[in-house]
Amino acid sequence: MALATELTELLGVRHPIVLAPMGGSAGGTLAAAVSRAGGLGLLGGGYGDRAWLERELAIVARGTDEPWGVGFLTWAIDADAVEMALESNPAAVMLSFGDPSPFADRVHRSDAALIVQVTDLDEARRAVDVGADVIVAQGTESGGHGARRGRSTLPFVPLVVDLAAPVPVLAAGGIADGRGVAAALALGAAGALIGTRFQATAEALIDPATAQALVEGRGQDTERNGVLDIARGASWPTHKYTARSLGHPYLDRWRGREAELAGDSQARQAYRDDVARAAIPPLPIWAGEAVDLITDLPSAADLVTTLAAQAEDALTWAGRRRPDNRPRAHG
Amino acid sequence: MALATELTELLGVRHPIVLAPMGGSAGGTLAAAVSRAGGLGLLGGGYGDRAWLERELAIVARGTDEPWGVGFLTWAIDADAVEMALESNPAAVMLSFGDPSPFADRVHRSDAALIVQVTDLDEARRAVDVGADVIVAQGTESGGHGARRGRSTLPFVPLVVDLAAPVPVLAAGGIADGRGVAAALALGAAGALIGTRFQATAEALIDPATAQALVEGRGQDTERNGVLDIARGASWPTHKYTARSLGHPYLDRWRGREAELAGDSQARQAYRDDVARAAIPPLPIWAGEAVDLITDLPSAADLVTTLAAQAEDALTWAGRRRPDNRPRAHG
Repeated sequence: MALATELTELLGVRHPIVLAPMGGSAGGTLAAAVSRAGGLGLLGGGYGDRAWLERELAIVARGTDEPWGVGFLTWAIDADAVEMALESNPAAVMLSFGDPSPFADRVHRSDAALIVQVTDLDEARRAVDVGADVIVAQGTESGGHGARRGRSTLPFVPLVVDLAAPVPVLAAGGIADGRGVAAALALGAAGALIGTRFQATAEALIDPATAQALVEGRGQDTERNGVLDIARGASWPTHKYTARSLGHPYLDRWRGREAELAGDSQARQAYRDDVARAAIPPLPIWAGEAVDLITDLPSAADLVTTLAAQAEDALTWAGRRRPDNRPRAHG
Repeated sequence: MALATELTELLGVRHPIVLAPMGGSAGGTLAAAVSRAGGLGLLGGGYGDRAWLERELAIVARGTDEPWGVGFLTWAIDADAVEMALESNPAAVMLSFGDPSPFADRVHRSDAALIVQVTDLDEARRAVDVGADVIVAQGTESGGHGARRGRSTLPFVPLVVDLAAPVPVLAAGGIADGRGVAAALALGAAGALIGTRFQATAEALIDPATAQALVEGRGQDTERNGVLDIARGASWPTHKYTARSLGHPYLDRWRGREAELAGDSQARQAYRDDVARAAIPPLPIWAGEAVDLITDLPSAADLVTTLAAQAEDALTWAGRRRPDNRPRAHG
């Protein structure tokens, strides 16, 4: 069987597997590779930087004839960024973190599906109200940004599925292999949105040290925090959103003292100095809790194919005993 | 199809559904009802209180001819409690939170399977080393007690499955309907251990106000904390274990100030006074993050049957489009 869901039907993709639009690192080459392999590649449009968008939109549009899309940080963009994306005829525009209503009508008037990411039930209700074509239910296991007080993927997804029906829901957060994709579908989701696992591919726009850190990283070493956004002077509204990252010297130094850090301009200057002299990485290493499952750096195409095959296998055998997997004798 | 797993084979139960041995509230009547319905009922032996055990062991042994078991808090019990349980010929003894090695040999010398609950990968390795017959991977979504710094069920379960193979693994935490059971199986687990959902049944040893609070409770209002154990003077090692509960006045008052509360004997006396005059409930209301999915108070038998049927249904339709569930026209 091939996995067919409301998502694969709605968007005409082969697998219910979506590349999370990771700001900066999900560029045109990665998005195109995911789409060519039968998933849905979403460009990480982030804050809507024009130069980045222009370059990467051209790459993805040139790189695949299959459906692809663009994701933005809702709180950070203006209408022009959405306009610019729509000019390249994406199959989907995804909006995350913030009120999607200023941009929803424009997307509805296009041929693109509107995907809205939500982190709690109130946001899920609002996503339905603005007419989202697909809703992403993001659990707190996710790498990178998410709600400061988030929900866990396993109990959150079925709630959003019930609330949003018949709007299809994607599960995000904590999924890094085909078993996770299968679990998402079992929970009633129409697919999985996957970030960290795609970050660790040949096509992701990350440096080799980051790739290596993801291969070596453990979920127990990841932590959701606002410290690193404050230290690096990011414009994220840290009272609402934190980010899950691997360990970091500034995290150990400032954990639990975010307000103090925000008021300490010397500490923030020290962070910039430490980046400048390469004492710390240029960016925090965002990583989801499922990072343990990442042990290689495949091509995105191989990864999509593997995830889909694993997911089918997991669903075939769930609740059935594999003949080659005898239980131990007891005692 | 019926759901067949390493668990159903090993223990000879019909469904891969296990009652979490919730201290005090998972009594003999509830455990027997779950086992009669084809799940595995585990008595909540908790701290190993002799009078409680004697009474409830008699009830469960009288109440079912199907396999049942007993669970204990490893850090709280002595060998006599295990001995007492084994005299009633349980099919399983479950040990949670602490080093199982002082009790493992005695269980191995009996006919009971040894089930060990773990909250991180180090504990999972030790459970394999002591020869656990079944390992429960508990995620931080769980109601009641668990690791202070826990793992989330969705990314944690596949890791434990890989580490423990061929020892069967149960998923615990965040599962309150058949979709959650199906997701557990898709992740490679041999079944689901379910607490809060069974707390809200006719047979659980809880008062009507607690049952009502579970029906009304929302996952977003649950919180993992050590405050309530400290306030009520429980002997739990709160530096290692916290508990997820619904909201509580003392939680609002003392959140983030556990050390201060521990040193404030007046505050702890005030807690006891508030319980005595019924200003607060006699016990915190333990609840998992999936409590939103609990909207009724069925019999345990009906619940087991429903969970199994929902899980089969979820696996049948995962990754296939239901014919009666057409997608919306786009736009």
